[in-house]
Formats: sequence, structure tokens, C-alpha cells
Amino acid sequence: MTQSLPTLDSFRAILRDLPDPDAAAVQAAMARNGQLTKPPGALGRLEDLAIWMAGWQGTDRPHVDAPQVIVFAGNHGVTARGVSAFPAAVTEQMVLNFRAGGAAINQLARCFGARMDVHALSLELPTADFTIQPAMTEAELLEALQTGWDAVDPASDLLVTGEMGIGNTTSAAALAHAICGGVPADWVGRGTGVDDAGLALKAQVVAEGVALHAQARADGIEALRCLGGRELAAMAGAILRARHLRIPVLLDGFICTAAAASLDAAKPGALDHCLAAHVSAESGHAPLLAHLGKAPILSLGLRLGEGSGAALAIGVIKGAVACHSGMATFAEAGVSEG
Amino acid sequence: MTQSLPTLDSFRAILRDLPDPDAAAVQAAMARNGQLTKPPGALGRLEDLAIWMAGWQGTDRPHVDAPQVIVFAGNHGVTARGVSAFPAAVTEQMVLNFRAGGAAINQLARCFGARMDVHALSLELPTADFTIQPAMTEAELLEALQTGWDAVDPASDLLVTGEMGIGNTTSAAALAHAICGGVPADWVGRGTGVDDAGLALKAQVVAEGVALHAQARADGIEALRCLGGRELAAMAGAILRARHLRIPVLLDGFICTAAAASLDAAKPGALDHCLAAHVSAESGHAPLLAHLGKAPILSLGLRLGEGSGAALAIGVIKGAVACHSGMATFAEAGVSEG
Repeated sequence: MTQSLPTLDSFRAILRDLPDPDAAAVQAAMARNGQLTKPPGALGRLEDLAIWMAGWQGTDRPHVDAPQVIVFAGNHGVTARGVSAFPAAVTEQMVLNFRAGGAAINQLARCFGARMDVHALSLELPTADFTIQPAMTEAELLEALQTGWDAVDPASDLLVTGEMGIGNTTSAAALAHAICGGVPADWVGRGTGVDDAGLALKAQVVAEGVALHAQARADGIEALRCLGGRELAAMAGAILRARHLRIPVLLDGFICTAAAASLDAAKPGALDHCLAAHVSAESGHAPLLAHLGKAPILSLGLRLGEGSGAALAIGVIKGAVACHSGMATFAEAGVSEG
Repeated sequence: MTQSLPTLDSFRAILRDLPDPDAAAVQAAMARNGQLTKPPGALGRLEDLAIWMAGWQGTDRPHVDAPQVIVFAGNHGVTARGVSAFPAAVTEQMVLNFRAGGAAINQLARCFGARMDVHALSLELPTADFTIQPAMTEAELLEALQTGWDAVDPASDLLVTGEMGIGNTTSAAALAHAICGGVPADWVGRGTGVDDAGLALKAQVVAEGVALHAQARADGIEALRCLGGRELAAMAGAILRARHLRIPVLLDGFICTAAAASLDAAKPGALDHCLAAHVSAESGHAPLLAHLGKAPILSLGLRLGEGSGAALAIGVIKGAVACHSGMATFAEAGVSEG
């Protein structure tokens, strides 16, 4: 399998031929789980998470020793429509904050021992306003996918993809509406904090965009090109690369999940290596997770993006694999079984 | 304030005169929170948790540098009624497992950087069968409270109290029924895994115990003595000591919460320094948390005890305080406010 994506067809070809989890490792992990010094099932979802990790990592003793957080940033032409409460310049300001270590995601990555990388994608060139033309050309989409693909450290054992991009809840809402259907109001939320008029405007903008690019509704990758953004495409590229490497992924909030949903739309099952780290307060996130059939691990009302909710869930996964891989068995500990 | 509890009256006196959180630290933390580089409220419950921690720790920059997990173990005479799926010998076997580092709580404490202590309380002397007489004498209750009181490290900055004791879901159910009312079936659950007949037996045993000690329903401490157990009393002692030291506490599952509820019953507000770390799969836990007015941080179907769910939540609190205390402000980062 090539490490580069010379054409969009290469990307589509990779999507058609995805590796599965290691069934033998799953079986071995299930057997081990049944012997650990606890009543059956007493660790609840932690047990399922550890066994799932075992399958993707191909071992009955899964680990989280080298988690990676990648934050992608992009700018959006649709901000010209006034869909965000913050000015577009904040995208670049926040990239500087990420690089200086001052953002929430920096603290969370450090807290859970994750490597953190930041990729700013052509911030001086916002995507086109998707109510007028496709957000990206095929070349621009491919470049962003490639950035994401290349950003994944093959030595990492758990991946978080995060984003920053003023206007990107509108882009994500358009993508979710194109992929999942419903009406625009199902998918638009308050983002960084728009008021009721701003919310109505976002719904109008989403309706215009999805109507203009109606042909993209049948093709997740085309929807990503026409309605997404560079940071969304980069997340999709990174998530696909992780699948290729069988690295498990924690999906963050609404924007990350919308980007991931474009892969699922193009190839059902493409997100089998992904967990929903949390359900955010952005109103479209819960229905989008329901569409993908993913139950969130955390529900703490976050709506920041940056990968913050997913980084927080690294702690839960660390706890799950620590129990599974570190506990004594009944025989080892000399404990009577029930 | 004395460090010892020579009489139960001393314990009751301490309960009547509890320190409050530092209001100035709460105000300072709220002000800081409003200046951090994120949209207002975007970190959801993490913001509330950090500000709450600030109040109890008396600083606008709360920390989790020295968390402590204490596991208390005790045996229960009510196991003679056949209320557990495991033999009573497992309590001592699991204490050895805790000491050898093989249990779930060992892995979780290590994962989140917590000191872990284990206290086995007179395992060779089970409490009395509470359907026949009070579980403990006043002297036995006081000794267990004192063990918990003494077990808290004054230098710790976050406390988890956990337990191990075959039969103690029945004891906790009786305590919850005595304190909260309702009917026995509201409070009994499957514990380590009893069947339907076992569940019906637990309800019968709880009904008998609460009927026998009807006078204890009006007094949380007396309910703890008549229906609780040594490890429950030790948790109550540790939780009260933490309040005295203004150390925040993460409540674990049903048994820990039932022990804590005895303090709340004796003195409303006694658990203001406690968070509900998680809601367990033991059926009485959710209504008990509702009775206490506490919303759980995690909901992952755990039902192990040992402090496991609370230890897992240490990660969430670490993330919350890392963001609050480590993030840059808008002014520091040169980021435009919305």
C-alpha cells in the first residue's frame, strides 16, 4: 500500500480495501477478560473498550503508551456570510496559541501523555464560499487529505484528530445535512456562540449550500470537497491513514465527526476503528453519532473542538487497557471464583 | 480541632461544624475562567469542576498533584443469609490481591498517579447479622470511623474512598432504604451477580433489617452502626476527615455513596465537598445519587467497587484543572474575543 495519495482515485481505492481488526486477538482478549479478578462484567464498558482496542492493536494486552493528538486548522470562505461569533483572524491566532502551549488541547494532551502536532492548512487561502461554488477544487481536497494522511505517526497507538477553523460548524452542518438528510435545523448549532438570528442564518446558508451541491449528497468524498474545509479533509485523511495502520481513533466533537462521516458515507464500516469519545453540546452532534451508530464514552457538555473531548477520553481508554492488561487473574491471585 | 475521635459525640460534634469552600477562591477562579482562550462555556462541565475544585482547595489555580485512593475492607455477618454470589473468604483474598498490585483499583490508581492505601478492618470478626442485632457496637463503629479518619493523608489534594466486602451491597441497600425510604426493591441489586432468587432474598433481608432497627431511620450515624459495616464506617470517617481538611472527594459506587449518605442524613450539606464520580450499574445507585442531588461525571456501567469508578474520574478532574490552571488568557495569547 502506497504512503502517498497521488490522485483522489488512490484515496477511493484505499477506502474500498480496509483492514479489519484481528479476530484472534479479540478472542484472546475476551478469554483473558473472563479470568481477571473481578465479577463478570463488573468493569462495564471498560471491558468492551479494552477488548476492542485489543482487536485493532492485534494483541490480547492492548496499550496506550504513545497517543497522538493532531490539530488541523483551516479557514472558511463561508464566514463572509457572517455565520460565526468570532472573526476569521482567530483561526491563526489560535494556531499560535496551540504552538505556544496555551490552548485547552495543549493542557489535555500533556495531562494524558499525548504527543501533539499542529498543522495549519493554507490559512491565507480560505476555502470558497460553498453557497457560491465548491469549497475546494479536487487538487485542494487532495492536498488536504494528504496533509492528514502524512500527519499520522505510524508508531502511535491511539489517535485523536482535532480542528480549529472559524466558521467550521457551518461547514460541518452542511456536510452532515448532505450525508444524513433531514432539514438544516437538525444540524446547525450555536458553534462558538451565535444568537437566534445567527442560528437562523446558519440554517439558511446550509440550505443554500446543500441545494447548490445536490449531486454531492450521493458521494461522501464529493460532499467533503463541496461543503467541507481543509481541516475537515485533513482529519478524514488522518482517520483513513489510521485505519490503514490499524491505529484506533477517538472521534472528537461535531466537526471531527462530520469529517469522519464523509468516509462512512463513501464506504460503510470505514469508521469501525473509531470510537465516539464524547457527545458535545453542539446540537447536531448527538444525531450525527446516532446516524453512525456510535455511543459516546463521555457526556460533559463540551463544545470546544480542538480534539479536547477526545483527548479527555484518552484517560478512560488508558484506564480500560491498564485494567485489562495489568490485572491479575483468579489463578494468579489465588482468589475464589463466584 | 482534634485529630482523634475519642467518642461518637466527638464525631457528631465535628459533623455539626463543617468548613465551607473558599468563596474568594471561587470568585477568582470564575474570573479567570472567563478570560481563558475558548468561547464562554465551551469546556462545559470541566469549567464547573475546576471552579468547584478551586473553592475547596482555596486557590484560583486548582491542582491534582497528589490524589489518594484508600480501599477499606470488611466482612459482613449478613452473608450467613446467603446474599452474595461469592464466598466471604474472597474479601481477604482480594485484600491480598490489592497488596500484591493485581486488582483493577491498583491499575487505575497507578494510571492516574494516585497513592493507594489498603486497610483491612478486623476481617476475622465479621459484623453481626443485622437481621438479628445491630451490625456493630458503638465501640466497633467508633474504631472503624477512626480508621477512616486516620487513613487520610493531609497532603493529598483529591480523595477516593473505595471498599471490598462480600455482602456489602446488602448492607448498603439496607442503609439506603433506612435513610431514603421507599421499598427494599428500590435499593437491592445484583451485586457481584446474584440471580432472581438471590435478589428476592436480598430484598427480604433488607426489609427485616430495617424493620428491626426502625429507630435508626431518623439518625444517619445510628443507621450506619446498625446496618452498615466496618468498611462503610471507615469510608464515612475518611470522607468527614477530608471535609475537615477541605480535600475534595470523588464518591465511587453504591456502597461508597450509601456510606456517605449516612453523613448527609446526619447533617445536610455534609457532602458538599464530594462529587459523584460515576453512576454504577448497581440498580440502587442512580436513585441514591438523585436523593443526594448529585449528577454523576461518568456513566460507564461499572459495578466493581474498590473505588474503581472514582479512580477513573480522577482523569477527568485532572483534565479539568489542567485546562483551568494551565491555559493562556485572551490577553496572554493575543487572541481576539468574540
